[in-house]
Amino acid sequence: MKLLEISRPSRPQTDYPEHTLLTPGPTPIHPRAMKALTRPMLGHMDEEVFKLNRAIQADLREMYGTAPGAFTALLAGTGSLGMEAGFANLVEQGDEVLICANGSFGRRMAEMAARYGANVRLVTAPLGEAINPGDVADQLGNAQMVAVVHGETSTGVLNPVPEIAEIVRRSGALLTVDAVTTAGMEPFEMQAWGVDYVYTGAQKCLSAPPGLAPVAISERAFARFAARRQPTPLWYCDFEGLRGYWLEQTYHHTVPVNLHFAFAEALRAALEEGLPERAARVRMMGAAITTALTPLGFSPYVRREQDRLPTVLALRLPEGLDDAAVRKELRKREISITGGLGPTAGLIWRLGLMGEAARPAPYRILMSALEDILNAPGLVKRFEAALER
Amino acid sequence: MKLLEISRPSRPQTDYPEHTLLTPGPTPIHPRAMKALTRPMLGHMDEEVFKLNRAIQADLREMYGTAPGAFTALLAGTGSLGMEAGFANLVEQGDEVLICANGSFGRRMAEMAARYGANVRLVTAPLGEAINPGDVADQLGNAQMVAVVHGETSTGVLNPVPEIAEIVRRSGALLTVDAVTTAGMEPFEMQAWGVDYVYTGAQKCLSAPPGLAPVAISERAFARFAARRQPTPLWYCDFEGLRGYWLEQTYHHTVPVNLHFAFAEALRAALEEGLPERAARVRMMGAAITTALTPLGFSPYVRREQDRLPTVLALRLPEGLDDAAVRKELRKREISITGGLGPTAGLIWRLGLMGEAARPAPYRILMSALEDILNAPGLVKRFEAALER
Repeated sequence: MKLLEISRPSRPQTDYPEHTLLTPGPTPIHPRAMKALTRPMLGHMDEEVFKLNRAIQADLREMYGTAPGAFTALLAGTGSLGMEAGFANLVEQGDEVLICANGSFGRRMAEMAARYGANVRLVTAPLGEAINPGDVADQLGNAQMVAVVHGETSTGVLNPVPEIAEIVRRSGALLTVDAVTTAGMEPFEMQAWGVDYVYTGAQKCLSAPPGLAPVAISERAFARFAARRQPTPLWYCDFEGLRGYWLEQTYHHTVPVNLHFAFAEALRAALEEGLPERAARVRMMGAAITTALTPLGFSPYVRREQDRLPTVLALRLPEGLDDAAVRKELRKREISITGGLGPTAGLIWRLGLMGEAARPAPYRILMSALEDILNAPGLVKRFEAALER
Repeated sequence: MKLLEISRPSRPQTDYPEHTLLTPGPTPIHPRAMKALTRPMLGHMDEEVFKLNRAIQADLREMYGTAPGAFTALLAGTGSLGMEAGFANLVEQGDEVLICANGSFGRRMAEMAARYGANVRLVTAPLGEAINPGDVADQLGNAQMVAVVHGETSTGVLNPVPEIAEIVRRSGALLTVDAVTTAGMEPFEMQAWGVDYVYTGAQKCLSAPPGLAPVAISERAFARFAARRQPTPLWYCDFEGLRGYWLEQTYHHTVPVNLHFAFAEALRAALEEGLPERAARVRMMGAAITTALTPLGFSPYVRREQDRLPTVLALRLPEGLDDAAVRKELRKREISITGGLGPTAGLIWRLGLMGEAARPAPYRILMSALEDILNAPGLVKRFEAALER
């Protein structure tokens, strides 16, 4: 007992200052969501919570552009659980699954699908390039499911989901889409495109606290689920249990009600602002940042303009810039930005433009710090001028 | 689009009053945890968060009474995910698993183990009675794992985990324990008893917000995991990914940092109060409530005193009491208590005495309301007198 007490780490600091979070997630929490977090506690089976859940479901239909009355819900976990729930419920031993893998989240999809028994085939693309829909058509074969990441956080690439969906729909395969860095900020049209399962993470484009994965599930997906030969191993996210709680108010497991409170406010704020307005805001911010940084030698990492993911701005660093040293200096000033991953480490920065991060205020803080650290007079002025345009 | 807007439910009420939550979970949030929820946002890979995580891990070792340096962590989901992660990582196709099932959570364990391929056998007990350790010994056979719910929330029964553990340890099988209604409030000695996997839910005995499942995993369990023939389907809670994030600070998935902030405070508050002091507090509260209600015809539902779970007080209702009507009237006054489940519906109440619910203040509110609703003068006076003892 004494031994344990001695080995306990010193108490962590809990009164640290406000932080400027410009990473590809989590994002700064929306003020309305932050306030809702501390609403009086209720149980997961209370009528007030069910009423709130129904409002969330309706708002999610709008965000995802679903068919009228389509099933939507929050999974009680982060975005990766949203990814896993799709494969767990819709894939069975021996199923053929084609996965578009041009970054680390596409590869994560492949690993999960394989764990649930799929024969996985990959459509790839060179790093920093989008998946070519023609490649999907060529490799489709007898795939029962195709899965694609809409916005690859790891490289800042936007995959052409509408074009891929058109090909998949003709084949009868299900289409699973990872909308983690897009839904709520970029247009998403589940019904019009023909998507069967889509998920995101609360802490990305909606600036709600992490811990929830909003999903939408098509009737076709439910039909596939109903035809399973075996129940899914994943009891926690079993579509039947999920439907029971969200449609029939039957107990499945406790849900994180405080996160529901916050999520509902963040989603409402997004819809009140307007999804087209949010998409325009991201583009305006991305253009202003790029304009301001270009004279210092920064350049877009993703070559083709249509392949660039607006919500994660991937910029190639100028020759000679010491990535680690600059980010460390920024961190000292309570500013977080993110570098590359794997092969792009040290070569790029990934600037988050999701939700509340896509605002002039936090980027003013970054520009001002960079002007000082990089000894680059005029940076703030250029940024302000670009915002005016 | 218009159609969707018309069908959207009316905005839910968000300014409801403070609520008295006396259910078997979630519990009223600890004030320190509530305050921590709105701490400035950080990323899941920030050093401040890793430092906080290490403090949480050390405190969890103390709460669970683990071996020095044993692995502890928070799963990013509710208690049922804690249950599932144990079977997902430690069971493989064809394994023999013996499950003590004397309530709905024991039966949930059996369903999960089967989904992960186990040959499940059950040890049962009559409703409202504890598992007999002799029955476990008789049925142990070649089981590779035994699983038991420490406190059955559904019936208010405490199972004799130390006695069961002694039998299991001799056999070489792994022992999984559901400590959802016990850990943090009742003594738990993972190392001394010989438990290999234990979990709870943040919103139970610790009065933190729901959405986290604190777990502890023994070296024996990790050895079993390392010897798997196939990776677990459950990528999200894969022990290797978990160990990577919690020990080596490598990215696995985003964690709900706001919930970590709150959880750390709630756990610290529990350890500062002292686990023996908390166990005494629950017993004092349970005795006072029982003393106050007995003259009205309430009586303990669980026959044998040693089988009674102190944190969920199951009381048989007096003849003629209209369960639904009384609870509805309480709910109008913003007080939630819970009735029976399945065969005990309408026959019992289950009063939550976990964490912040086990305080005189919220039960004063209940007693005062019951004195009025049941027209039972003297109830509050009896309760106060019993608290004095």
